[in-house]
Amino acid sequence: MRLYSMPSSGNSYKIRLLLSLIGRRVEVIDCEDGSVALAQARAGGALPFGKVPVLELDDGRKLAESGAILWYLGEGTDFVPGDPALRAQMLGWMFWEQYNHEPVIAVRQALLNYPHRAAEATPARLDDLLHRGHALLQVMEEHLAGDDWLTGGPSLADICLYAYTHSAGTRGGFGMERFPAIGAWLRRIEALPGYKELSE
Amino acid sequence: MRLYSMPSSGNSYKIRLLLSLIGRRVEVIDCEDGSVALAQARAGGALPFGKVPVLELDDGRKLAESGAILWYLGEGTDFVPGDPALRAQMLGWMFWEQYNHEPVIAVRQALLNYPHRAAEATPARLDDLLHRGHALLQVMEEHLAGDDWLTGGPSLADICLYAYTHSAGTRGGFGMERFPAIGAWLRRIEALPGYKELSE
Repeated sequence: MRLYSMPSSGNSYKIRLLLSLIGRRVEVIDCEDGSVALAQARAGGALPFGKVPVLELDDGRKLAESGAILWYLGEGTDFVPGDPALRAQMLGWMFWEQYNHEPVIAVRQALLNYPHRAAEATPARLDDLLHRGHALLQVMEEHLAGDDWLTGGPSLADICLYAYTHSAGTRGGFGMERFPAIGAWLRRIEALPGYKELSE
Repeated sequence: MRLYSMPSSGNSYKIRLLLSLIGRRVEVIDCEDGSVALAQARAGGALPFGKVPVLELDDGRKLAESGAILWYLGEGTDFVPGDPALRAQMLGWMFWEQYNHEPVIAVRQALLNYPHRAAEATPARLDDLLHRGHALLQVMEEHLAGDDWLTGGPSLADICLYAYTHSAGTRGGFGMERFPAIGAWLRRIEALPGYKELSE
């Protein structure tokens, strides 16, 4: 299998983190934002929706969307709960991450860190994202104050939400000191055997 | 089971459509936008992320996010393919719908049809959504020009994408005459046994 992955992107990191946690290795093609490799992959039809990450299977079929790739690699491992309702709650967190969390928590990090996004980083936009982000983090905080994990035990939902939450303070300027339960949960994920950092 | 559902919302319609296609009935609580029922459901803790649809199971557990509810109800039916890669491609379309398609195709429909969104419906915003929407619909058109369904046979992906695509022309002003393969696919879904309209 071959993973088209953006080294700086949380969406790609989710896949690399799961692969490391389950002890699987795949060929990784680095496609950094703005790189020739990304342009080539896109022009060559390797990216079904024009985005990374994409997992290309040995038979040539391509899987797009980080949540779907996590599912494909996670099925049959301990990171997908056996109970159907828990599985659906896990997917619920993953859809919530893509629809609500990522467009706020990840986008503020992108605006502050990618030079080509700097023009969008107006004070009003950054302020709006900050307030909406704190409300979203509060949803996670309230759940994690009563539970060590998002859906019972470590699952794809935790890996998915970890990617952009772990850097929300350092790269996004969110006030993570307000969210102690999230902080403890981040440390639990970092203690899992096989954990690796974004830059590894 | 009890479904908290917004009658006018495509995200809720997806669930009602799947239930009808698989011949299952559940109690439906109508929570229209701005209604007392929606405010009560939210205040009473029935909606994990504060949004509808939500499926409450007989044991009281609550499932949020339309894609996750579709998965829960669809597992074990003909609407979820047996092949793991096809299942992941199906989920890929569903994540793409929530991250890319819905925030453009559904949002333009909301701005044009919900009075309380009218202030956001500036000409520049509507024009931007129109152009981005046509590019997204072109992704579906290119796939459907070569395949009757999004992932082999009728699946959760088709039900998910149908909801806001079928009304993209009439409610959203998108130029659907440009997308004949999408038009033929909409008619195929409407011919499935058990199909029901948004208003049914």
